[in-house]
Amino acid sequence: MSRPAALVFDAYGTLFDVHSVTRLADELWPGRGAELSQRWRAKQLEYTWLRSLMRQHADFGRVTEDALRQACEALALPFTEDHHRRLMDAYLRLDLFSEVREALARLAGRPLAILSNGSPAMLEPLVAHAGLAGVITHVLSVESVGIFKPDPRVYQLAVDRLGVPREAIGFVSSNCWDAIGAQRFGFSACWVNRAGAPVDRLGFEPDAVVGSLADLPALVS
Amino acid sequence: MSRPAALVFDAYGTLFDVHSVTRLADELWPGRGAELSQRWRAKQLEYTWLRSLMRQHADFGRVTEDALRQACEALALPFTEDHHRRLMDAYLRLDLFSEVREALARLAGRPLAILSNGSPAMLEPLVAHAGLAGVITHVLSVESVGIFKPDPRVYQLAVDRLGVPREAIGFVSSNCWDAIGAQRFGFSACWVNRAGAPVDRLGFEPDAVVGSLADLPALVS
Repeated sequence: MSRPAALVFDAYGTLFDVHSVTRLADELWPGRGAELSQRWRAKQLEYTWLRSLMRQHADFGRVTEDALRQACEALALPFTEDHHRRLMDAYLRLDLFSEVREALARLAGRPLAILSNGSPAMLEPLVAHAGLAGVITHVLSVESVGIFKPDPRVYQLAVDRLGVPREAIGFVSSNCWDAIGAQRFGFSACWVNRAGAPVDRLGFEPDAVVGSLADLPALVS
Repeated sequence: MSRPAALVFDAYGTLFDVHSVTRLADELWPGRGAELSQRWRAKQLEYTWLRSLMRQHADFGRVTEDALRQACEALALPFTEDHHRRLMDAYLRLDLFSEVREALARLAGRPLAILSNGSPAMLEPLVAHAGLAGVITHVLSVESVGIFKPDPRVYQLAVDRLGVPREAIGFVSSNCWDAIGAQRFGFSACWVNRAGAPVDRLGFEPDAVVGSLADLPALVS
């Protein structure tokens, strides 16, 4: 992953901690917040893959709401419209992982893009709330192509919008399958493995693995 | 779901209990069998969806092995080639759910097909071991189209092979997402909800829901 001309980051799980909703979920259902957050996230991803394969795309806001409702039903957590509104609002103010701001500052001087399943209506407040509007140079949403990751058309969107050939793009994701999808597309793909998880066995591996974004500046310079 | 000309069944989870591997897994890792079985199955499905979207198809035997290894790694279960061989062998001799044999006997007299993610090398011994070779009239594998469910090309395979129009096919799956995928394709789709789980929120619902295959003969006659 030597000196990419541009860096493209996944948003949810990579820059932003999707499990920062656990705090609010724990207020709403004491002792059940972590469980709800895990299941919500798992269903959210599952629904992106299933809708993509079924050719029944809906935007990530809809998928995220649907996954939240199903997760609450499956865990038998009582669910009101107030719960729903507060948790969906929390998704627009997710925490940045602690090392992200400094790492991005050290990486500046080249295009730093987000390429996300999120819809523009979700990504814009998220990036603004985190104070990254002046740091991230391009915010790219799959809504432009109407299908979710890891369909290759999503990764092609970054090539088209950045005007940089795929082999000169460094792609960074904490979702192992996303890094592998990007690697198959032709990016130099780095997996951010904060949890020390085993690699996904999808027949191919990411080009690089780091423990956090703090390791990225050394990797790409 | 009135009087379908042919019935098409999912195999894994619908006719055959994928969690019958729990017994052997519990012998190999006492007290951890159920956990391993759940994670193995979840990763197996996840890898079918991801490989399909990445356009990196591999047959279901490979995917099932890869998912088993990853599940063992994630759960820190020590894993030898002997464990691997025995669990993969167990996948060729999964239990039928208890009501299946009698239900299929009552449904005879029309084409009764299996349409499965499984490869022919996995499905043939599975059907033979269960003594269903004379009952199931067609065993159809996604290997003919090189992509997994719920891609519409998989459901089209049943139309092509059975020579029955899609609207005259009744499709039966205990995987809610599979029933919904089939419904979107144009089959009359029945979800077998043995566990009383909440419906998957994918924007559409199956045409019918039953608690087990024992309810199917009344539904289609």
